[in-house]
Amino acid sequence: MKALRFNAELRMVRDAPLPRRAGEALVQVISAGICNTDLEIVKGYAGFQGTLGHEFVGRVAESPDASITGRRVVGEINAGCGECTRCRTGDARHCAGRTVLGIKGRDGAFAEFLSLPVRNLIRIPDGLSDEAAVFVEPFAAALQIIDQVSIGPGSNVAVIGDGKLAQLVVRAISHTGCRTLVLGKHEFKLALAARSGARTQLVNNLEATTGELLSEQADQVDVAIEASGSATGLPLALSLVRPRGTVVLKSTHHSPTELQMAAVVVNEITIVGSRCGRFGPAIDLLAGEGVDLSDLISARFPLDDGVAAFHKAGDPSSMKVIINVA
Amino acid sequence: MKALRFNAELRMVRDAPLPRRAGEALVQVISAGICNTDLEIVKGYAGFQGTLGHEFVGRVAESPDASITGRRVVGEINAGCGECTRCRTGDARHCAGRTVLGIKGRDGAFAEFLSLPVRNLIRIPDGLSDEAAVFVEPFAAALQIIDQVSIGPGSNVAVIGDGKLAQLVVRAISHTGCRTLVLGKHEFKLALAARSGARTQLVNNLEATTGELLSEQADQVDVAIEASGSATGLPLALSLVRPRGTVVLKSTHHSPTELQMAAVVVNEITIVGSRCGRFGPAIDLLAGEGVDLSDLISARFPLDDGVAAFHKAGDPSSMKVIINVA
Repeated sequence: MKALRFNAELRMVRDAPLPRRAGEALVQVISAGICNTDLEIVKGYAGFQGTLGHEFVGRVAESPDASITGRRVVGEINAGCGECTRCRTGDARHCAGRTVLGIKGRDGAFAEFLSLPVRNLIRIPDGLSDEAAVFVEPFAAALQIIDQVSIGPGSNVAVIGDGKLAQLVVRAISHTGCRTLVLGKHEFKLALAARSGARTQLVNNLEATTGELLSEQADQVDVAIEASGSATGLPLALSLVRPRGTVVLKSTHHSPTELQMAAVVVNEITIVGSRCGRFGPAIDLLAGEGVDLSDLISARFPLDDGVAAFHKAGDPSSMKVIINVA
Repeated sequence: MKALRFNAELRMVRDAPLPRRAGEALVQVISAGICNTDLEIVKGYAGFQGTLGHEFVGRVAESPDASITGRRVVGEINAGCGECTRCRTGDARHCAGRTVLGIKGRDGAFAEFLSLPVRNLIRIPDGLSDEAAVFVEPFAAALQIIDQVSIGPGSNVAVIGDGKLAQLVVRAISHTGCRTLVLGKHEFKLALAARSGARTQLVNNLEATTGELLSEQADQVDVAIEASGSATGLPLALSLVRPRGTVVLKSTHHSPTELQMAAVVVNEITIVGSRCGRFGPAIDLLAGEGVDLSDLISARFPLDDGVAAFHKAGDPSSMKVIINVA
């Protein structure tokens, strides 16, 4: 089969073997989205080799559970060992021995087929388009914030960043009724964020944006969400949030962060690490009337042009880039 | 009056003016305890000049509210501006313009008299000894942890550090029924921690203590409490705590901390800054049968020997040092 694989460099392979794993389902990929994690892997940051891609929608080609064969599905990307304490308590996402689709120990979705355990597959309603379904995984991750932190009408929320992840976060929290301020470096991306009612502030240099500059808001930010992927995002979030407020750390970067943790103690700040989320609420919102993410799609490429799709996704002016497989 | 004052150096002053502040109560100090914050101030870390001391018990000498005159009291050490959003919502502790007894903009308790607003004073029951009352403020700060984080029977808690603060933390959490492991550098201090039922582990070098070394516990620690005041305490706490667990940051230090925050996101760790606590529960516990902290007192000095008391408190073998004033 065809697959977009990374091994020191990214290239299209035409004769990759089918990714069969004992006891798992084989899924024919329909569409898949390029995420910043994919871009990081291609920079060599994650130590992963193999087929990339973890945001997908597909159709089950073969399955040990015949009832799901032929169904359109999305997939939970973490596959636990099934035996450790984490797995036995239903938290395979944090299993130390887990594989992660297209990220860790398991070939991913930029290919004609992928393999996942049946329990990882979630059927999606007919009303959910293929392109909307590609957003289920990243939108679930954005929605995880409101599973972890109390955000509601009256909450003042600052989102740091205006890229793909930040845009999903803004839309995930917008239906809570909170007031949102988005800090970003790009006017056209801020304009996109403003569509869901957020106020925006252009900051040419996140690094130079101190609490002082934003002092009007500074004492009123209940929750500051770092979604910029920049090393300066967390210090900025800490300077913005009110005493006893919460900083949500949504994006990762790979350099160590220098922090003055004394302020975290004195101001009794809570910092919450946030990663993947539940698919159910994401599917419900995307299948309903309320959330349309199609304006976040910058480009669509066929799988054959996967390398070009990555170049496009790496362009700072791009938002989501979709690879259409079937 | 006599006062132990810091201004580039620590010295006893015999002719300090009475610390009168308009509309506040004047309190005659009975006893006061030396805290690590005091030792940090004397090292020049906090920018404070004036009379040190914030853990105290005293008797009200003069008060605009006569009903409290003559009463034995302890005191909330943060005095807010009374006008900002924080103060109006009852959170003077986080008022940006607050003064803090013996720490920020307000003379402290190592003196014959101190001044505090009447609303900051809390009467204590006759059954609470003067020495026990000196522990109300730091013990309240330790108890703050169980106000912020769910700890109960079945919780696995690791406390990093074996000094004064760590000892108070161990006793504060011990009555929740949790299982506690204390990691410290001093056998005799660990023996003290073991008195309240904690397991202990001697680590010669916190810096070299990796999650690997403690791998048996590592995946099972629900809450890791950094109370060592060491720059390496937080990275150790992060390496110990299980996925989706909580790290409580209880102690401060003044150098920047280098952290790999990606692990906080991937493992969805929550970091909670924790400072002062409510006095009521601390008074109830100290006045009851359950908590006796007298074995944490290493030495007692009269106010005249305040400088010597500080030398004793700075000795690594010391726990709490008390200055008796009246």
